[in-house]
Amino acid sequence: MMVPDMTSAASRTVVVLNGPNLNLLGTREPAVYGSATLADVEQLCRTACERHGWALDFRQSNHEGDLVDAIHEAGRLHAAGQLAGVVLNAGAYTHTSIALMDAIKGTGVPLVELHISNVFAREAFRHHSYISPVARAVMCGWGVQGYALAIDGLQHWQY
Amino acid sequence: MMVPDMTSAASRTVVVLNGPNLNLLGTREPAVYGSATLADVEQLCRTACERHGWALDFRQSNHEGDLVDAIHEAGRLHAAGQLAGVVLNAGAYTHTSIALMDAIKGTGVPLVELHISNVFAREAFRHHSYISPVARAVMCGWGVQGYALAIDGLQHWQY
Amino acid sequence: MMVPDMTSAASRTVVVLNGPNLNLLGTREPAVYGSATLADVEQLCRTACERHGWALDFRQSNHEGDLVDAIHEAGRLHAAGQLAGVVLNAGAYTHTSIALMDAIKGTGVPLVELHISNVFAREAFRHHSYISPVARAVMCGWGVQGYALAIDGLQHWQY
Amino acid sequence: MMVPDMTSAASRTVVVLNGPNLNLLGTREPAVYGSATLADVEQLCRTACERHGWALDFRQSNHEGDLVDAIHEAGRLHAAGQLAGVVLNAGAYTHTSIALMDAIKGTGVPLVELHISNVFAREAFRHHSYISPVARAVMCGWGVQGYALAIDGLQHWQY
Amino acid sequence: MMVPDMTSAASRTVVVLNGPNLNLLGTREPAVYGSATLADVEQLCRTACERHGWALDFRQSNHEGDLVDAIHEAGRLHAAGQLAGVVLNAGAYTHTSIALMDAIKGTGVPLVELHISNVFAREAFRHHSYISPVARAVMCGWGVQGYALAIDGLQHWQY
Amino acid sequence: MMVPDMTSAASRTVVVLNGPNLNLLGTREPAVYGSATLADVEQLCRTACERHGWALDFRQSNHEGDLVDAIHEAGRLHAAGQLAGVVLNAGAYTHTSIALMDAIKGTGVPLVELHISNVFAREAFRHHSYISPVARAVMCGWGVQGYALAIDGLQHWQY
Amino acid sequence: MMVPDMTSAASRTVVVLNGPNLNLLGTREPAVYGSATLADVEQLCRTACERHGWALDFRQSNHEGDLVDAIHEAGRLHAAGQLAGVVLNAGAYTHTSIALMDAIKGTGVPLVELHISNVFAREAFRHHSYISPVARAVMCGWGVQGYALAIDGLQHWQY
Amino acid sequence: MMVPDMTSAASRTVVVLNGPNLNLLGTREPAVYGSATLADVEQLCRTACERHGWALDFRQSNHEGDLVDAIHEAGRLHAAGQLAGVVLNAGAYTHTSIALMDAIKGTGVPLVELHISNVFAREAFRHHSYISPVARAVMCGWGVQGYALAIDGLQHWQY
Amino acid sequence: MMVPDMTSAASRTVVVLNGPNLNLLGTREPAVYGSATLADVEQLCRTACERHGWALDFRQSNHEGDLVDAIHEAGRLHAAGQLAGVVLNAGAYTHTSIALMDAIKGTGVPLVELHISNVFAREAFRHHSYISPVARAVMCGWGVQGYALAIDGLQHWQY
Amino acid sequence: MMVPDMTSAASRTVVVLNGPNLNLLGTREPAVYGSATLADVEQLCRTACERHGWALDFRQSNHEGDLVDAIHEAGRLHAAGQLAGVVLNAGAYTHTSIALMDAIKGTGVPLVELHISNVFAREAFRHHSYISPVARAVMCGWGVQGYALAIDGLQHWQY
Amino acid sequence: MMVPDMTSAASRTVVVLNGPNLNLLGTREPAVYGSATLADVEQLCRTACERHGWALDFRQSNHEGDLVDAIHEAGRLHAAGQLAGVVLNAGAYTHTSIALMDAIKGTGVPLVELHISNVFAREAFRHHSYISPVARAVMCGWGVQGYALAIDGLQHWQY
Amino acid sequence: MMVPDMTSAASRTVVVLNGPNLNLLGTREPAVYGSATLADVEQLCRTACERHGWALDFRQSNHEGDLVDAIHEAGRLHAAGQLAGVVLNAGAYTHTSIALMDAIKGTGVPLVELHISNVFAREAFRHHSYISPVARAVMCGWGVQGYALAIDGLQHWQY
Repeated sequence: MMVPDMTSAASRTVVVLNGPNLNLLGTREPAVYGSATLADVEQLCRTACERHGWALDFRQSNHEGDLVDAIHEAGRLHAAGQLAGVVLNAGAYTHTSIALMDAIKGTGVPLVELHISNVFAREAFRHHSYISPVARAVMCGWGVQGYALAIDGLQHWQY
Repeated sequence: MMVPDMTSAASRTVVVLNGPNLNLLGTREPAVYGSATLADVEQLCRTACERHGWALDFRQSNHEGDLVDAIHEAGRLHAAGQLAGVVLNAGAYTHTSIALMDAIKGTGVPLVELHISNVFAREAFRHHSYISPVARAVMCGWGVQGYALAIDGLQHWQY
Repeated sequence: MMVPDMTSAASRTVVVLNGPNLNLLGTREPAVYGSATLADVEQLCRTACERHGWALDFRQSNHEGDLVDAIHEAGRLHAAGQLAGVVLNAGAYTHTSIALMDAIKGTGVPLVELHISNVFAREAFRHHSYISPVARAVMCGWGVQGYALAIDGLQHWQY
Repeated sequence: MMVPDMTSAASRTVVVLNGPNLNLLGTREPAVYGSATLADVEQLCRTACERHGWALDFRQSNHEGDLVDAIHEAGRLHAAGQLAGVVLNAGAYTHTSIALMDAIKGTGVPLVELHISNVFAREAFRHHSYISPVARAVMCGWGVQGYALAIDGLQHWQY
Repeated sequence: MMVPDMTSAASRTVVVLNGPNLNLLGTREPAVYGSATLADVEQLCRTACERHGWALDFRQSNHEGDLVDAIHEAGRLHAAGQLAGVVLNAGAYTHTSIALMDAIKGTGVPLVELHISNVFAREAFRHHSYISPVARAVMCGWGVQGYALAIDGLQHWQY
Repeated sequence: MMVPDMTSAASRTVVVLNGPNLNLLGTREPAVYGSATLADVEQLCRTACERHGWALDFRQSNHEGDLVDAIHEAGRLHAAGQLAGVVLNAGAYTHTSIALMDAIKGTGVPLVELHISNVFAREAFRHHSYISPVARAVMCGWGVQGYALAIDGLQHWQY
Repeated sequence: MMVPDMTSAASRTVVVLNGPNLNLLGTREPAVYGSATLADVEQLCRTACERHGWALDFRQSNHEGDLVDAIHEAGRLHAAGQLAGVVLNAGAYTHTSIALMDAIKGTGVPLVELHISNVFAREAFRHHSYISPVARAVMCGWGVQGYALAIDGLQHWQY
Repeated sequence: MMVPDMTSAASRTVVVLNGPNLNLLGTREPAVYGSATLADVEQLCRTACERHGWALDFRQSNHEGDLVDAIHEAGRLHAAGQLAGVVLNAGAYTHTSIALMDAIKGTGVPLVELHISNVFAREAFRHHSYISPVARAVMCGWGVQGYALAIDGLQHWQY
Repeated sequence: MMVPDMTSAASRTVVVLNGPNLNLLGTREPAVYGSATLADVEQLCRTACERHGWALDFRQSNHEGDLVDAIHEAGRLHAAGQLAGVVLNAGAYTHTSIALMDAIKGTGVPLVELHISNVFAREAFRHHSYISPVARAVMCGWGVQGYALAIDGLQHWQY
Repeated sequence: MMVPDMTSAASRTVVVLNGPNLNLLGTREPAVYGSATLADVEQLCRTACERHGWALDFRQSNHEGDLVDAIHEAGRLHAAGQLAGVVLNAGAYTHTSIALMDAIKGTGVPLVELHISNVFAREAFRHHSYISPVARAVMCGWGVQGYALAIDGLQHWQY
Repeated sequence: MMVPDMTSAASRTVVVLNGPNLNLLGTREPAVYGSATLADVEQLCRTACERHGWALDFRQSNHEGDLVDAIHEAGRLHAAGQLAGVVLNAGAYTHTSIALMDAIKGTGVPLVELHISNVFAREAFRHHSYISPVARAVMCGWGVQGYALAIDGLQHWQY
Repeated sequence: MMVPDMTSAASRTVVVLNGPNLNLLGTREPAVYGSATLADVEQLCRTACERHGWALDFRQSNHEGDLVDAIHEAGRLHAAGQLAGVVLNAGAYTHTSIALMDAIKGTGVPLVELHISNVFAREAFRHHSYISPVARAVMCGWGVQGYALAIDGLQHWQY
């Protein structure tokens, strides 16, 4: 059994953030991203959070500023000891947003960088990430199941 | 006569999207961009669309996220067989926005990348475009008349 | 109606130049270039010129020096006020010929750089052009119809 | 006495713009940015403006488009002879936003690029700025006192 | 419960391969790699495999050729339908071994690339991997718990 | 015996093309290229062709366009099932001619890229070839005997 | 009033160093550097120092070694608590002198790097500075008034 | 007849070395490498050697050090006048092994670098070879028949 | 008096070669190249040759292959002891023609590379020359007088 | 007298490791490496060690993994206070082995990087070393006498 | 006769400046620089100046600052209409001195950049010059005779 | 005993040259350079020279030209057979001075390049040296003891 006595951390929240174009999931390039929709992903995350007794805050935005704001909110949860961790699929902003990088570094939130596909098997400009150096962990290539895997992994970061 | 029997495609819409700073048109660096305003461009596009019996959806925004949203909307028109094509002058986002690139690729909209000036005769950083590889056609240097030329060109893509 | 009172410019000539391998058109990589032959393209250009009352000088050569010579000839037409414009599909010399660049700059001919396919969606070495900075306009990706579109666009440059 | 007879320019406004994450000032990496908050900076700027008889318009946003909009507003003040100058701390957008660059160039506003820390002593990607070539002056490394120093410097640009 | 009816895949083997210097685990730079030894990691993998009913083949070598040989062995298991997947922590060979890349591609084994630390937060030469483009999934930064997480993830690849 | 029953392919022609400066062979840098003249090479090729019952078309030109034309001619032989293969020593054009590359790709002729000396042991700019990616085979460093070796190799491409 | 109770620091010295070609000030490229001479600049600095009760040591040299020597002298003042700060306009040595960089780092003097023009709007080789990473602050583009602004800024560094 | 009076050289040995993953030949990516196995290649080499009266020493290893050792052995044959030549297909080590390069240069063995596929039509990192500058001849793209062609070519190097 | 007893070398010929677009001289960008025509230059060269008793062979071509052929002709003069030297203004081919480089190296003709303007004060792509490493001397920036200066310089190379 | 009272450190061992191709010493490129054999070097090292009362462990291997293993062994000596230091001539692996770098960093052994020839006067790819940043000292160009000089230098590191 | 009516310019001075290591001329690498000493060169320059009625100021220094000072002195001659021109052989400072570049640009002296050998046939770092873009003319490869040729050329710049 | 019968070379001089900022030794960044002063280093060198019966000429300068002059002086000693060798710690000029490189090459003095710290473990711009390719030997990382070690090594170069 993978999730034993996380009771002390049980009232915490997992923040899952999705960046630009992820609202197209299920219709955009299914050969790359699969047929699950973002609603399916949210349900998958909810099930994983329930396994650990955590709340879920699940969002998507096409605006870089919205994602920065959301990291700031997560930073306030973190300062209050109420954050289980952030799972961030920043989409295209992964490769261009120093603002997101600064937000993560400035708030110090524990964060997993996640990609549905194996970005390293795609175009060269997707191989560089501004998020990776300030993330605690990085994972990609697991399809949408990677969201659940990432949430399971957060248990090792609770204190 | 250039536009004969396009009747089967006549109920379609042309989406013309203008990116950051194009609302300054006519006042910003007239030596580069000319003295026509964005309202003049809209009228010019409307006339061109009428030649082909198409509706026009003409927009401008300084927000990258707004443009991504608009591509998504155009994608829904496209899926419904109601899109004649997209003419995108992404301005500065041409050179930095992988999010726009992903939106175009993800929705599969037929799209012309357009620039008023000859970007290749300007600064080096304007020579690279994230849009070009996912556009069907690219044109620049025709001044504001390029908008009409691009709309005329769309007739060859109707089916 | 697109071509109203161009009578004053009506006795001018459009020079259409085609570089190396374009004589293979219709047989070479049809998936990329389509099935129209160079003779078809010439006819298409002739029709477009007739719409505007212009003469057509249509050529192809596999020799870089021939194309430089042809630009010089067009320059003499231009100095005599008899040139409507040049449409240049320089093929592979687009990417390697500083001599063509110098010829265009030295004669000052108004010139459209044209490519049948979207060169920006192809190999990286096809993304750089020595012609673009000295062209007035650039267009690509319209298939062979781009030749007609370019000739239509020339009307905006007459005086 | 540094600010003598600027009366003719006294009714002007100083626009101070702060980019992404600067709302975190005082809590984000104090070793780099110090413990003053953005409210402290605003007060510091207000005091400096009063020394010169200028109004202050002080803003912060995490959205690139908001900053572009604000530059456009400042451009309208400038056209009306009511702008003393812009002090822009563009944060991370310094390094990625050609849109901001174009807005500054397009409106022609007199602008000081400012950074609280010495960006040249930090990561390499912070050494390149799209703002610098279109700014009139650049300064960094003075801590939050740099804002006051920049406002003092604006007196030399009044006419 | 994460591992329901994998009975049809239950007789398979997980191959965990560790590259150069991983035998130093627990003594080498504990601030980076933690204090668990390679024996601890093996036990952790054994427990995870038991959860899924899989056998474990756990190895370490400082020789590039040994790792290539081991991938070939895993390839034979794979051809026989007896491989659950490979978890490869190639250490320094991640960044230099095209031979390992060719072995993975040549055998077609389903493989997770794993690193204990977040390699993207370390030296630049550790940011490039020859393994990533031929891996199915990549993960790093989870400490030694990443091995268990990777093995859990393999269940989604069984058929 | 190396050339048994190639009778069905026996009426084919081998086209051997030599690029710029190869007419100097035997006098130009003998330490690099040896003392055989181009006439000697032609004889050597003739003997090799006779071994296989093939005709020989052997040419040299200092003009890039001539070589492109010759590839086109070979392409017509190829379309008629009368080409055994092309052996191309493009000399300096190897490193600069995208036009030759396009001609080879456009006609689809089976072609061996050949160099007399080992170009990889010479100046860096001779290490890159535009021909190699569209050739079927590449060989260098065998001296003038490489021509015969290449012709012998063509037997494996007959059908 | 900007300079209140700096009495404890009042006996200190400001060292202003000017590098190669600055003795040409007023005659060299006035469009870039203005018409003030170096003597004007010295007077401007003297007035600024008097505002703060500081002595002034003002120098110019075309020799890299002289400037290194001068930094060493300033380092001895600094060790004796008698240095208010260094204002260094290193001219062309900004971009080439690792020796100056080492001198600044080795003595630890508090130093402002200053340029009269906006170096970032000029040639690319003027964008890199060996001084910036070891300076405390950097400023450029204020014309010769920048010297006074820099001296004013030094008050915030006194203790 | 190709191999007349090589009797004086007849007692020599041809050393054929195969690097990493070549033991997978016939099963690994048949579209690239064909369906012949390494045993087939050995037989093909043996037949070719018999044509010239030479012995054959045919090996494969996934270990870089083994290949270096084998070159040293060939070097000892060479010093004894008993080596006809080396045919080296170094696989992935072609692109990474300076040690192999030094071994070839240090022993001075006459060596043909061989690749089954046309490496120049594949990934960019396969275009650079450390072997080529120290080889006498290079050949690629002939499929497994290239081994026989290379052995035939060795006759021109006997003395 | 500069040209005393060159009688022994007096029957030699100076070959002056002009590359692409130099036939435009006097009309093309006079601010860069001056108003002298190519006929003026030929006369200027003739006068200079007469000073030294040399014949003149003066040519221009827009074809790379023509220039290669001309170098070969000069090489035959050189072999016969009848060449005083070559003055080559290769125009745009300076920067792209390895074939010309090989021709010069292969024939060993003593050659001066000449440019009318100072190419180093122009676009970056004009700073690299394939001719320079195989020329004996290089000169630029003297306007058309450079031709006479180069011919005068040849006297020091006679034997 | 150079080696006085090292008695407390006298029972320690010097490990001298030699990488690929150093077994060829004396026969391989004598102009570069001299005529001494590896046996001569071992004797030279033994004499130097005896001067300081140290034992010698002298090895050579062509296998990268063997050298990693040997560093690990030296690490165990080091942890036991029995290591005087390591002298490593890694040959070609100097430039390619991150695994060796990690082994040295992971064990923390005090190590001198040594090359017989002056590598900086040779090919560019020999100028970069993965060993240097983790070595304590580096020396090259002393011929085989460098081994003795390095061992003499180790006395300054004993405690 | 080359120097007719230069009488009006006859009282001018030619400044010949020689940079570091040129005092070694005649002893340093005679194969590259010839056997003439710097005194020989001075005599050669004196003779050339006498041909034109000019005075000569001939100097050498190993100090960058001395050369900058000398350019300033020449600038004062130039402002007084007493400078015929500067011939600068900056030696190694050619490639490293932005200070010299600025001095030439700042004073506006008409200057010939000269090198004795053909620098483009030597090491790559000698191919870039900071002097060339601000020189009027550049010449190299004429041996020491180049000094006289350059002085002869100056006559075309007199007014 | 290390220095037996060097009597024939005993009357020679060792020249030790120290570049910019080395006069700060002992006070500048002691964590990097240690606490020994330059006077200590001179004594250490004197002792080492006495061991071999050599005179010592020990200098320091912050001026690049002074060091060039000093190499020239050493060159004169060398020509007279009175130089034992040069030990050069060029400090920052190591990385920027082509003039020093030319002086060493031009005089041919036998020279050891020395750095107190391991420069390869420091900033990237300290990894490139213009001195190394013309030095005979290079050493770094031995602290100030490296000076003595270098002088000891010179004995192997006497004749």
